Amino acid sequence: MASAAERDAMRRALTIAGLGPRGVNPQVGAVILAADGTVLAEGWHRGVGTPHAEVDALSRLAPGDARGATAVVTLEPCNHTGRTGPCSEALIAAGIARVVYSVADPGARSSGGGARLREAGVEVEAGLLLESGHALLESWLTVQSLGRPHVTVKWAQSLDGRAAASDGTSKWITGPDARTDVHRRRAESDVIIVGTGTVLADDPALTARADDGTLLPQQPLPVVLGSRPVPDDAALHRHPHRFLQYSGDLMAVLDDLRMRGAHRVFVEGGPAVAASFVREGLADELLVYVAPVLLGGDMLALRDIGVDTIAHARRLSVSGVQTLGDDLLVIAIPASEGDA
Amino acid sequence: MASAAERDAMRRALTIAGLGPRGVNPQVGAVILAADGTVLAEGWHRGVGTPHAEVDALSRLAPGDARGATAVVTLEPCNHTGRTGPCSEALIAAGIARVVYSVADPGARSSGGGARLREAGVEVEAGLLLESGHALLESWLTVQSLGRPHVTVKWAQSLDGRAAASDGTSKWITGPDARTDVHRRRAESDVIIVGTGTVLADDPALTARADDGTLLPQQPLPVVLGSRPVPDDAALHRHPHRFLQYSGDLMAVLDDLRMRGAHRVFVEGGPAVAASFVREGLADELLVYVAPVLLGGDMLALRDIGVDTIAHARRLSVSGVQTLGDDLLVIAIPASEGDA
Repeated sequence: MASAAERDAMRRALTIAGLGPRGVNPQVGAVILAADGTVLAEGWHRGVGTPHAEVDALSRLAPGDARGATAVVTLEPCNHTGRTGPCSEALIAAGIARVVYSVADPGARSSGGGARLREAGVEVEAGLLLESGHALLESWLTVQSLGRPHVTVKWAQSLDGRAAASDGTSKWITGPDARTDVHRRRAESDVIIVGTGTVLADDPALTARADDGTLLPQQPLPVVLGSRPVPDDAALHRHPHRFLQYSGDLMAVLDDLRMRGAHRVFVEGGPAVAASFVREGLADELLVYVAPVLLGGDMLALRDIGVDTIAHARRLSVSGVQTLGDDLLVIAIPASEGDA
Repeated sequence: MASAAERDAMRRALTIAGLGPRGVNPQVGAVILAADGTVLAEGWHRGVGTPHAEVDALSRLAPGDARGATAVVTLEPCNHTGRTGPCSEALIAAGIARVVYSVADPGARSSGGGARLREAGVEVEAGLLLESGHALLESWLTVQSLGRPHVTVKWAQSLDGRAAASDGTSKWITGPDARTDVHRRRAESDVIIVGTGTVLADDPALTARADDGTLLPQQPLPVVLGSRPVPDDAALHRHPHRFLQYSGDLMAVLDDLRMRGAHRVFVEGGPAVAASFVREGLADELLVYVAPVLLGGDMLALRDIGVDTIAHARRLSVSGVQTLGDDLLVIAIPASEGDA
């Protein structure tokens, strides 16, 4: 059982964890408590290449001062030597008697810190304020479990599945409420991906904007897929972030984006790019904005996804249907095997 | 103001109206009341070529017995000579002093009976129990106002607007709840229409069936559009009604069906037939069953509808979105001008 002082310390650790940057490494906070519950030191992780939270906190104490103390940490202390040494060994060496953590480390190489501490005779308690711990680390945990960033694929379509009329015109199929929703989701993403076809056809700004056109505080990194050059006068050049361009294997693209700290990727099309993510099983979430309109014709919102026969249909699990003005938003995830 | 006896008589008239057949002519009931409110006679319309309800009721009285009486009728007495003479003249000739009716006759040729009666000095009161009157005549009134049967166009599609996988396989995109819903709606329709392509590809029975496969009490008349012959061994030959086959102009098809008494037509596809009804503005209601599945490929659920540019998109007004098992049913009607 965690004490009241330990619960308070965990709340503090969760708060200071958020002071560090969201990115490749998890946000982690640590608080060192004396046996009587008074706070001896605190620390947090300030990003790649800097000390982990536990080591940061310990570094604020004179040698020996942590002997018999309790370390309260938001994430299970790591057990591997990366850019820094394993935190479990640092805690053991400092003479820490008890470790309380919230979230278990899901990493294949970094986990096992709790077991190593117990082995060394340290008392370990896991799972304190677990819900808050998960909320803090949600996108990082997703990246750990997927081995790549989480991918949302979005498109807008007519009820009959078209993205544009026969002559290519499409502005605007969906209404203002749907567009507001898209911009909000852009702002929540680390990266926004479009194909060169969309850049050449629509010249999108790829910024996250408020209804009045002003930029929202958070802007996703724009990424262009395909080898055709982005025109010198493209709106993309005026994005607050310099865009990246890739061609080739999608998994390699996602790997590179993960190395750059991207946790959430928002794929905005067009029809060929959306289809390639679906075809390769890389669409973790689908957002389909359906306008109450029929278009017919051959300008499809989703191109071929390699389904040859009905038994191979990509089955989805619809997690929600929202009304946005006159439009519908269907939110779905791939159905797991056997769901069909 | 209608008297209590007149309200009772109208309720009775609405009930006996329902004894007549639903079809080309409206279902109408009439009750003749003496001045003291006692019922002198009642009648109803038994179908094309038989006396209208008022005349049927009057025919049950000896000459002169209706003098000074009140006629309570569910529909405004007609004013034209069709297969039978105008009811307004028959009522005047019989010496009826007062007429109470529920629903006004919307017909261009048959309306005006109320005015003719007033002209002849008969007291006329309209709109008694109007809601019940409308409910009784709903589909007939629709036919009167459209000048043709009401057309519902239904299709099932994947979320991305496909009706089948690339190899043409499609059984079953949608689930059992959606199929139950379709069969219920078939039973509520007078006619079910498919193209010869669907007959040749799917060999549908076009019956309205319960979940256990047994036939529902009401069966729509099956209609096949197109000139290719229906194979001798088609399931359609085992339908309780002998099917009709048409080729050519859709409006002429609907006209002929109206002449046969059809009020509600249910168009079940395939993609070319659905598109032709939408293209010609003959789809009064759309039922799109959306399965939570992606198919890609080119087997579209709705073919070209002649929309060349986005400004000509067929805008819809969504009247409902229902969840049917894993599927969604989107119910929509064409948006009126200016709704967009």
